[in-house]
Amino acid sequence: MEPAYLHKETKTPKGEQTRELILNSALDLLGEHGYEKTTMRAIARRAGVSLGNAYHYFGSKEHLIQAFYHRLHEEHLAVTRPALEKESSFRARLLTVMKLKISTLEPYHEFAAALFKTAANPTSPLNPFSDESDPVRKESIELFAQVVDGSNTSVPKDLRAELPYLLWVYHMGITLFWIHDRSPRHRRTYRLVDHTVDLVTKLITLASNPLMRPLRKQALKLVDELRDAASEIEETA
Amino acid sequence: MEPAYLHKETKTPKGEQTRELILNSALDLLGEHGYEKTTMRAIARRAGVSLGNAYHYFGSKEHLIQAFYHRLHEEHLAVTRPALEKESSFRARLLTVMKLKISTLEPYHEFAAALFKTAANPTSPLNPFSDESDPVRKESIELFAQVVDGSNTSVPKDLRAELPYLLWVYHMGITLFWIHDRSPRHRRTYRLVDHTVDLVTKLITLASNPLMRPLRKQALKLVDELRDAASEIEETA
Repeated sequence: MEPAYLHKETKTPKGEQTRELILNSALDLLGEHGYEKTTMRAIARRAGVSLGNAYHYFGSKEHLIQAFYHRLHEEHLAVTRPALEKESSFRARLLTVMKLKISTLEPYHEFAAALFKTAANPTSPLNPFSDESDPVRKESIELFAQVVDGSNTSVPKDLRAELPYLLWVYHMGITLFWIHDRSPRHRRTYRLVDHTVDLVTKLITLASNPLMRPLRKQALKLVDELRDAASEIEETA
Repeated sequence: MEPAYLHKETKTPKGEQTRELILNSALDLLGEHGYEKTTMRAIARRAGVSLGNAYHYFGSKEHLIQAFYHRLHEEHLAVTRPALEKESSFRARLLTVMKLKISTLEPYHEFAAALFKTAANPTSPLNPFSDESDPVRKESIELFAQVVDGSNTSVPKDLRAELPYLLWVYHMGITLFWIHDRSPRHRRTYRLVDHTVDLVTKLITLASNPLMRPLRKQALKLVDELRDAASEIEETA
């Protein structure tokens, strides 16, 4: 399935405005009533457009969520790009990307909690690991590839191949933590980011040691297997 | 909240039979219709007992699920105890416990999939990490302590203190994989157990190396923090 934002994208400012209006209305309603109980009809009504018009921009509620994921990524990218230019160590680059992730997510906290109930199911098309989420996931993994490639840290080839995906999985774990974090200004999540970025950096240094080669190979093989299994769960769902 | 099986336990064979009958009827119905849609009334009807009688044994649906978790653990324990006596290496002991876990879970696969939709939510009392699940979780962690303590592998004190909990978390991860595994006779899960038990064993050996002390301390501190955060999510839920 192609994501909505690819095949329905419109270049006219007016169309773009309508699209944004529908998406914002959808995020409001979905945040209030949850994914299951919100209809396309209600979304169109809130946006003040016809149902047909809403469907012109988004083929389904699912497309709306994929467009939401895409927007999150675009917002994240816009702030990380200039910030990454200033950092050359892997550790500082990862820290930058992770902190900016949490701060750009901030306005969507309530919505993310509502979405979680549906998207947490591994067989849901809204799950970040699903086939349907593949385009946004790829873009997001590409950002983590830049974190690695632009750094002055040397990482062996086998690990470098998997590292962007592993960092993306790590960032999903932090996002999951953030969704359930009720501490003031999500202080706990920021602290967790500080500690885990440090730990992840040290683990990568350790795993890059030539003595670690056999164990590293075995761990990477497991990552591959888990990824295969996940996509098979998808297919039979 | 005390779990149902503690404060409503009955010592008479007749009472025990009725209790089992209600629990079995509940598992059937919950497996068929899911957690939300199954009422205590329907469970009592299926078991052929009065609603009052059903409530006498189980204060709520939630108590039924906790009783189910307890039964799973008892069944697991019954087969692991004699099997563990034959194994002295950590690796063989963990492998035994994990394989027997999957085989004892087997009859409940459909039910577990239905339950997952509710129990996956971190704020649900049915979540294995919840306060309500604490008694069964403690018993299960105790089994993993025996896996470590009964083995001839030496583990530094700081790691030994956290290892039973970490192994329990690992076993929850495997259970999650099994719930979504549709391969014939869950071959994939067994393969995953083989590979991960091997990897976990090697990682413990690595982490036990004196040179790893600073990194190990840092990782264990993170485990502590995550556990604290999880219980806080619980409390504010």
